[in-house]
Parts: sequence; structure tokens; C-alpha cells
Amino acid sequence: MISAEIVRGLTVRNDARIVLLVLDGLGGLPDAKTGKTELEAAHTPYMDELARRGICGMADPIGRGITPGSGPAHLSLFGYDPLKYQIGRGALAALGVGFELGLNDVAARINFATIDRKGIVTDRRAGRIPTERNQQLCAKLRKIEIPGVELFIEPVKEHRAVVIFRAEGLSDQLTDSDPQKVGLSPLDVVPISAEAAKSGEIANNFISQARELLKHERPANMVLLRGFAKYPDVPSMSEVYGLNSAAIAAYPMYKGIARLVGMDLLSSGDRIVDEFNTLADNFAKYDFFYLHIKKTDSTGEDGNFAGKVKIIEEVDSCIPRLTGLNPDVVVITGDHSTPSLLEAHSWHPVPVLLFSEWCRPDRVEEFSESQCLSGGLGRFPATEIIALVLANALRLKKFGA
Amino acid sequence: MISAEIVRGLTVRNDARIVLLVLDGLGGLPDAKTGKTELEAAHTPYMDELARRGICGMADPIGRGITPGSGPAHLSLFGYDPLKYQIGRGALAALGVGFELGLNDVAARINFATIDRKGIVTDRRAGRIPTERNQQLCAKLRKIEIPGVELFIEPVKEHRAVVIFRAEGLSDQLTDSDPQKVGLSPLDVVPISAEAAKSGEIANNFISQARELLKHERPANMVLLRGFAKYPDVPSMSEVYGLNSAAIAAYPMYKGIARLVGMDLLSSGDRIVDEFNTLADNFAKYDFFYLHIKKTDSTGEDGNFAGKVKIIEEVDSCIPRLTGLNPDVVVITGDHSTPSLLEAHSWHPVPVLLFSEWCRPDRVEEFSESQCLSGGLGRFPATEIIALVLANALRLKKFGA
Repeated sequence: MISAEIVRGLTVRNDARIVLLVLDGLGGLPDAKTGKTELEAAHTPYMDELARRGICGMADPIGRGITPGSGPAHLSLFGYDPLKYQIGRGALAALGVGFELGLNDVAARINFATIDRKGIVTDRRAGRIPTERNQQLCAKLRKIEIPGVELFIEPVKEHRAVVIFRAEGLSDQLTDSDPQKVGLSPLDVVPISAEAAKSGEIANNFISQARELLKHERPANMVLLRGFAKYPDVPSMSEVYGLNSAAIAAYPMYKGIARLVGMDLLSSGDRIVDEFNTLADNFAKYDFFYLHIKKTDSTGEDGNFAGKVKIIEEVDSCIPRLTGLNPDVVVITGDHSTPSLLEAHSWHPVPVLLFSEWCRPDRVEEFSESQCLSGGLGRFPATEIIALVLANALRLKKFGA
Repeated sequence: MISAEIVRGLTVRNDARIVLLVLDGLGGLPDAKTGKTELEAAHTPYMDELARRGICGMADPIGRGITPGSGPAHLSLFGYDPLKYQIGRGALAALGVGFELGLNDVAARINFATIDRKGIVTDRRAGRIPTERNQQLCAKLRKIEIPGVELFIEPVKEHRAVVIFRAEGLSDQLTDSDPQKVGLSPLDVVPISAEAAKSGEIANNFISQARELLKHERPANMVLLRGFAKYPDVPSMSEVYGLNSAAIAAYPMYKGIARLVGMDLLSSGDRIVDEFNTLADNFAKYDFFYLHIKKTDSTGEDGNFAGKVKIIEEVDSCIPRLTGLNPDVVVITGDHSTPSLLEAHSWHPVPVLLFSEWCRPDRVEEFSESQCLSGGLGRFPATEIIALVLANALRLKKFGA
């Protein structure tokens, strides 16, 4: 596998413009009646034209059979080994609410839970309290004070929240307080390594103050913490690829991952066409644009086959706005598959379309799972897309002489 | 990836004859008018016949998106991991002039350069002096004496030369003296590791004597050294594969790489047909023949599409001389792509044709990039060709029981 480390030594800079268009959860499964996936059912004349002029293939975000979360799937698309740079659950939760996690911060997922008089957990989700209740409880928890530590507490959804501990020398080498089962007491947080001792004390102090503050609440009278995590120290796209890069994404999670790899965040309206307009407005300013479309994934997760088809068609109708800018390299793909039939992320590889003057076109006539299978890019790890992109932009020197 | 280390334990010897025919820079890009690459435009009835009877595929010399230099591309074809066995710039320069680099030698690239009165570099290439001038300057530099060190100085082309330091205990862990920019002084060579201290002194001594010898020359009154490199210690084809192997190549660089992996060098005339005649003359003497055709690459680098087509056709016309010898395994491929449209090496994968009695033929009807895409060998790392070759020659035992 070609790693970021090899590419790093070969990069050169030029004026080429690269666009990576990510339709989240693009890959699908065929409808039983028509035999067509969402992408195949969609009428996509512009993407099909690019597929005819370009080269296609099938990429595995993590590996055959492995269903990726959004974090590793995106790191992979950006060329970072998702097994090397793991984003822990707490850090992902912080990303998800748009919190700007610093390299010294430790984040953890909070579950609001119910305990009985003896302190035994009777409901790990406190009956999935409404999000508004969660917000009130988070406001209450913000009273917690720990000397020398800055605390941030943010609601996520229903019973889920996130806490961020900020201080010098914190470690995320900590066990969860969540016992993972009802009928047990919440666990003490235990440091896994010696340098995490202080962090463990801080976490237990937080939990004990939270228990006191919530003791008269019903049903959410306790917090369970899990997934203590710092941000992975990922080298930037600029450092590794020599790319001045920008992200156009409407959702906090994707903005967070883009920021993690050092992209500038461009503000944009929420509609798909707004994102393409933002691309046009900023096209002169960056080498590399990551444009993220969320709704292909959310319709897929809702099991809304027709809705996903419609979103793909809406994206297709915007393609002329992209090609009209004459980018040197265009890649259209998904971060992973989200088949409407499964109503979830899946392990299926994602169709990839690459277009550039130098791409060596194949015989693919249509951007679809079935045709990408026999495309000229073959079947390959998604982490290699970035090297292909840089090569097609003539931004890589040769390896060796 | 199947490495040389796994194959090593499985080899057996027999009388099979293997020919690896390498058309340097074979892969191309389609002409805008015809939609055909050089290989597709060429009339190649003999190779097409072999493709019909054999099995085809597409190989990546280094990895997707990575454009290989000749050194790593060839190591890959010979089954050696090109990331593990890196040939430094100095060693490659020595290979290129046909110098027989020993395992204790350290080689470095020389640029003849111009410095002003204050010693500031004003031209890193001394106006690209003619090669004859370079030869005269090299003769002058041969006066340099360093106690305990044997020195070899060879002109390459224009302002480029190579110096080889030969002594016990030398190291190539040295920084360049080339400042890479005009307006700066040449740098001292600095040892990167402790055991390179003596080598650093030797290099700086060489540079200071060269400066003195060249001080009245114009415009080339200085040398800049870079890419200090020893030869990588590559195990031989005989040791790893049990192959008694020979190279037929007209250019020094390829002879050097062949010698690096322990092949015998067969002398041959320069014409393509001469190389095939040399093959015939020596066919009884070796298990494995590497036959290298240079001009597919040089026509590609010149942007001479028609010229490259013609060379491919000339090679094709010699194929009956090869098949007439009844080799057990034939592989025809390139070390990398050199599309005429790009006028340079490129990252595109190379078409591979393998023919043997045991190859399990696919449906490929023609030796071309577009048909090799759907060939039975699939898309695979070029380092795996050698295992396929040995298997088809029935020279590999089974792995495990």
C-alpha cells in the first residue's frame, strides 16, 4: 500500500485545481424489483459523461468486509491510514458537535443514565430523555469546578453528551466508567498507564460532582463516561501533500475531520447548490477542495431509497457548475456505502470516478457500481486515491531515478 | 503482497527456460483523435497471438499514482520490494555510466557549477557546459589525491558527473554540498551518523581540492555534490529464486541494475534484432533471460508517438525468433509507462502478457492497455510477476502441506 509517507517525499507544487466530491454513503444495494442500486436508478447524465471521459474503479475504505464509521472513512479518502490514525469515540463526539478540540484536550462521551438508591445502574440511557432535557442537564453540569482544569460540556442528542477536559499533561489512557450492563454500579475510571494517574483523578472527581448535582433528577440522575480520547496528531494535507486545501461541508462532524487534516473551512449555505456556489466563489484560492454531500447518507440510513436517488440526481444537476470551473482533476466517490436496504453504513466498496487530462480513460459508460467494477482503476484501497489525484494533477515527482 | 522472502523458501530447479521481455516505458496514453495508445496503434500480430494463447493483466510498478524511476521499476520487475531496496542518486549515476560499483564504494552525483569571487553559487549547472568540456574537467579532477582512498571520476553528460570513493568503512550517511539554490555558498558535507565522520572529511577534502583545481576555469569553477549513496545489498536472483540468469541490454543503467541482482551480462549488438539473436545464441546456458528494449522509452520521452509505435512493431517482428526457441514461460511487459503525450515516465500501470503451457488463458484477444485491464491476471503489484513466472515454470513447491 502506498502510504502518505512515500507520497510526502515526492510532492511538487503547481497551479492545478483538484476537487474531491464526496457523496456520503454513496454505494448502495440493488432494489429487488429493478435490480438497480440508488446510483444506478438515478438519472445522472453529467456524471455519466464524466465517467465516459474519465477512469473508474471501486475503492475499499478500510478493507473487504469492514464497515467504516465516518471518521476513518474520511481519513482514508484523505490518504491517511485509518488503522494508524484512530479517532477515539470521545474525540469523534466532540467533532460531531463542532467543538474545536485542541491537541491537549481529552474528550469523553457522556451517557445520562438512571441509578437506583443503591447506586446500581437500572437504565444506561435514562429512557432516552429528550434532547431539551439533555441541554438543561448539561447546563447544570457546567457548575462543576476542578482546579487547574478547564471543562466544556456539550449536549449531543437524547441521552448523549460530551465532556472535554483541558489542561497540560492530560492523558486519554483511561478506562470507561460505563459498566456496559444494567445491574452493576458505575465503575471507577482507572488509568491504564502511569502518566494518566492525574487524568484519572480528574475524571473521577468530575463523575462524583456530577452525581451530586444530578442526585434529585429523574430519570437522568447519573453520568456514565466512555471513550476517553485525545485528538490523533495527524500531519496536515499541506505538510504531507503540499496542498493548500479547503472544505465545503454543512455538518460539524465533517468540518471537524477536515480541520483535523488542516483544511480551511469555507462557510456555505445548507443546500447542495449552495455548496457548489461556494466552490465557485473560492476556486482561485485553493489547490484542493473537499466538497461533502451529507444527504445521500441520511436518506440511506432512513431506508429512503427514492430519497437517496433524488439527492444523487440533485448533485448531478450541479455537476456543470463544477466542470465549468475547468478543474484539472475531479474525483467523485463516497466515503463508504449506505444502502437504503440496510438502513446503515456497510462494508461494500464505493464507486470512484476520476477525471483528468492524463487519466487513461477506460470503457466505463456510466457512473454505477456495476460498471465501476470493470473500470480501469480496478479495486483498490481508498487511501490510494490521493496519490492518484496528485499524480493526475502532475504534482508528484518520480520515485527514484 | 508475496515477497521474495516467501518465494525464496519454495524454489526448485528444473530445465525450464524463462524470458522476461521488457519494453521500457511500454504503457501509453490514447491519442486524442484515434483513442488508441502507442501499443494499441501498433500492428503487433505476434504479441496479439501470444496474448490470445496466454494470460494478461495490469501491473503497478510501485503503487497507484507513483511514477517510478528506472531503478525501482526494474527492481520491482525482478521481484524486489523497491521501497526496501532503494538505489540512491549517486549509485544510480554510477550505474548509468557503467561503473562497477562495489559494496564498499560510496558514489555521489557531481554538478559542475559557477561560483563568484565571494564563493556564492551563481549557476548550479555552469551554463550546461558541453560534455567534452565535462570530460576535460573530470580528467583534471583525477589529480585529486586522498590518502587511503581510491577515487574514480566519470563524466555523465553536460554538467553532470559522478565520483566514487573506495575505501574500507565508508558510509553514505552524508548531506549534500549542493545548496539547491543560487545566491548561497556551497555547503559543507555533514555526516548524519557517527560512523560517517571519516567519510564526511573525505568528501569535504575532495571538494576543497576540486575548488583549487578548478579556480581558473570558466564557467565551471566549482563542484556541487549530492546523493551520496552506497549500493543496496540486494540478494541475487540465484540466491532468492534459484535462477541462473542473464541480461541482454544495450544501456549501461540497465546492465548495472541487472548486475546488482546477480545476472550475467551478455554482450550484444545495439539493434533490437541483435538482442534477440543474442538470446538465441545463449538460450541453452541460462534459466532466465532479461531482455531490455530501450527505445520505447526514449521515443516516449521525446513525445514521438509514431516513433514509439514503430519500435513496438519492430519488437513484434522479432517475437518469432523468441517463440521459435520454445521457452517455457514468456512475459512481455514494461518497467513503467512513458506516454508520448506526457513526454515522461508516468504512474499508469503497465500491460503484462504471460504465456506458458500452464497459464490458464483468459479472453484477451490483443496485447493492449484496454484489453489487459480485463485480463485474467487482474491488477497487481509488479513485484509479484516473478512468483507467477516461477510458478508457470513449475519451479515453486507448494506452501505448507
